[in-house]
Amino acid sequence: MAELVGNVLVGQSGGPTSVINASVAGIIAEALNHECIEEIYGTLNGVLGLLQEELIDLAAESQQQIRALKHTPGAALGTCRFKLKKQADFDRVLEVFKAHNIRYFFYIGGNDSQDTADKISKLAQAQGYELRVIGVPKTIDNDLPGTDHCPGYASAIKYIATSVRELAADNEAMGQGDLVSIVEVMGRSAGWIAAGSALAKRKDHPHDPPHLIYLPEIPFDQAKCIEDVKRVLKREKFCQIVVAEGLVDADGNYFAADAATDSFGHAQLGGAGDALAEIIGAHVPGVKVRVAKPGLLQRCAAHAASKTDAEEAFLAGEAAVEAAINGETDKMVTLLRGDKDIYSCETGLAPLSDVANSIKKLPREWINEDGTSMNFQFLRYAQPLIQGEITLPHDGGVPVFARLEKVRVDKVLPAYEV
Amino acid sequence: MAELVGNVLVGQSGGPTSVINASVAGIIAEALNHECIEEIYGTLNGVLGLLQEELIDLAAESQQQIRALKHTPGAALGTCRFKLKKQADFDRVLEVFKAHNIRYFFYIGGNDSQDTADKISKLAQAQGYELRVIGVPKTIDNDLPGTDHCPGYASAIKYIATSVRELAADNEAMGQGDLVSIVEVMGRSAGWIAAGSALAKRKDHPHDPPHLIYLPEIPFDQAKCIEDVKRVLKREKFCQIVVAEGLVDADGNYFAADAATDSFGHAQLGGAGDALAEIIGAHVPGVKVRVAKPGLLQRCAAHAASKTDAEEAFLAGEAAVEAAINGETDKMVTLLRGDKDIYSCETGLAPLSDVANSIKKLPREWINEDGTSMNFQFLRYAQPLIQGEITLPHDGGVPVFARLEKVRVDKVLPAYEV
Repeated sequence: MAELVGNVLVGQSGGPTSVINASVAGIIAEALNHECIEEIYGTLNGVLGLLQEELIDLAAESQQQIRALKHTPGAALGTCRFKLKKQADFDRVLEVFKAHNIRYFFYIGGNDSQDTADKISKLAQAQGYELRVIGVPKTIDNDLPGTDHCPGYASAIKYIATSVRELAADNEAMGQGDLVSIVEVMGRSAGWIAAGSALAKRKDHPHDPPHLIYLPEIPFDQAKCIEDVKRVLKREKFCQIVVAEGLVDADGNYFAADAATDSFGHAQLGGAGDALAEIIGAHVPGVKVRVAKPGLLQRCAAHAASKTDAEEAFLAGEAAVEAAINGETDKMVTLLRGDKDIYSCETGLAPLSDVANSIKKLPREWINEDGTSMNFQFLRYAQPLIQGEITLPHDGGVPVFARLEKVRVDKVLPAYEV
Repeated sequence: MAELVGNVLVGQSGGPTSVINASVAGIIAEALNHECIEEIYGTLNGVLGLLQEELIDLAAESQQQIRALKHTPGAALGTCRFKLKKQADFDRVLEVFKAHNIRYFFYIGGNDSQDTADKISKLAQAQGYELRVIGVPKTIDNDLPGTDHCPGYASAIKYIATSVRELAADNEAMGQGDLVSIVEVMGRSAGWIAAGSALAKRKDHPHDPPHLIYLPEIPFDQAKCIEDVKRVLKREKFCQIVVAEGLVDADGNYFAADAATDSFGHAQLGGAGDALAEIIGAHVPGVKVRVAKPGLLQRCAAHAASKTDAEEAFLAGEAAVEAAINGETDKMVTLLRGDKDIYSCETGLAPLSDVANSIKKLPREWINEDGTSMNFQFLRYAQPLIQGEITLPHDGGVPVFARLEKVRVDKVLPAYEV
């Protein structure tokens, strides 16, 4: 295979995670190993910066800051939820690539972002512009197909499981048979994050909190919920619940939704916890209900991130560069689990078109018969992912994160109206 | 002063904190040093367990578990919000004390709990029963008078400041001039916790998040809020807000309150964040508003606790025992700050009657003219309190906390109806 000489462009897209910057660090680290790669650029705010030719020189950043990316939450390059729609937008992307001799494009993101990467890749092929496009998976939702799990997911559930266990200590102390404590977690279409809260239970202690987990996969049954809450309150004196924002009723309607939709047409959810609190408050006499909603905190809680997750995010970045150097394109890096008893993880590749806009559901057979707890198959899957802690550097009592210099690459094209 | 020979009783009351158990550990550690102390008991769920003669033998717990209390959130002895009202209740408490030869009573709690301790102490004196009662301060609200600060507060604000800084990394990456991100924190009558979020700012970076802090001390001004949000969005492309649950309007009414009151007659608050989101959403065109509400998580987040706080909570427990051994009674341990530039902390004592049911407000002169940010006086006060991190032991990826055996002390009295 002929060596492709040119520049690298890295972009981040969609909601940030605690470890998405570790993938950027992995890409930079690996790119520096290859002489055919001349410049390493980043695009600010994903395709938005690309359209506006807002590129930065990542090789100009200090090594210190690049290393700090490994533990920095958010998206250091900026991100976007912008969807390329017009043909003019796609043409502009190619124009920018050509103007800056971008031959390697690495896009770190979830379903929508992989779809964008796929379309850019196909357009380049159609125009005969040699470009290698590799997607790097990223989503706390863990719903990308073709990969065992997604970087970002493990850190989100480690934070949630940690929080639920801490909350258990608090709630247990307060519980006089009348305390219901609800934590609302993210998860639009799949219950991966809510399921992860099951890791708060000690081994062989099925009655440990969370006592009830409400997943989007299981239509909400109000009568059963009331009975379950009463039973747990009687047994444990308190009842700890984790509910996914995307919970649906028996008719498949979102349990609590407001009218807004985001720019991809997804319903903006929120309030499942409050809605559940209202139902329980109205139907369980004398009960006090408390709701916690970590919201965006759960996707940026670097202080409770999984070391395994951060390492795999870095690895996925490295693997993306290796694959592109080896001539691969139009693929997404996947994480493959070894089949041994002891957890191991390697990378693989899946066609972007197989990944884009498809969703991996939580397997029904990993949920217990009761519909509100996870079985050993899920625990066996999730437990290894949250192993290891990261010691964050602190200054003045709060963690210190990377801040990139963002040295701009000179623009060479006329301005473009987004 | 004559040596008082007898048993110790420790109780916890009110909302738990990340470090309230460190005070129990301090009491036990110090009590073991004194031969005049024969048994070390704990009462389950504060005065509730006392009325029901539900006592446990703390000296029977393993040293390992007592040591683990130093980093365990929640209240390991159980807690309550029960208020002693009837004379019969007070008489019963004394009866239990006499039956178990309790001569030292240590009650760890906030305003209401110190009031309870004060009343028990006065009753014992009136009945001529020799009893030494020392309160140990505890509240994330930091609103107890007579003490520089309260154990539990620093860990709550370290968690909030950490979360706000992490959220800043996320929000900054997402911000396109239209993102408003709100964190609702606790603080019923004083803005101590909301103020603590100011520690998320880097030194000499006044424009760092949180951009706007809404405190109960400053009546909410909607027109100013809208202008402030617009200005910040223009300057920063995103606007991060921290709001205290106890925010009031110009007439002094809670900004968002529901009808319920707790057993002490306090209004149960919640929803200030959502109410603020609604106002901003309605008055700032095209804005997206996200609300996070850590709720009870902020008082039990041991994984982001302040080492300084945990050490001072332990110290306060030790000091309580020392004071009682020295003949003090009817006092609460206070934390006194040294007057040197380098932070130091000693303990003192204040009369329980001075502490009970009184509230320390956040000084107005620590809030900037704008009413939505904190000045150097607050930062100088709060910064030293959040120094140092605690490395929690983990098992299976989640922190491991103490679990007491709770060996019951034999009951010797007839049952009592609570």
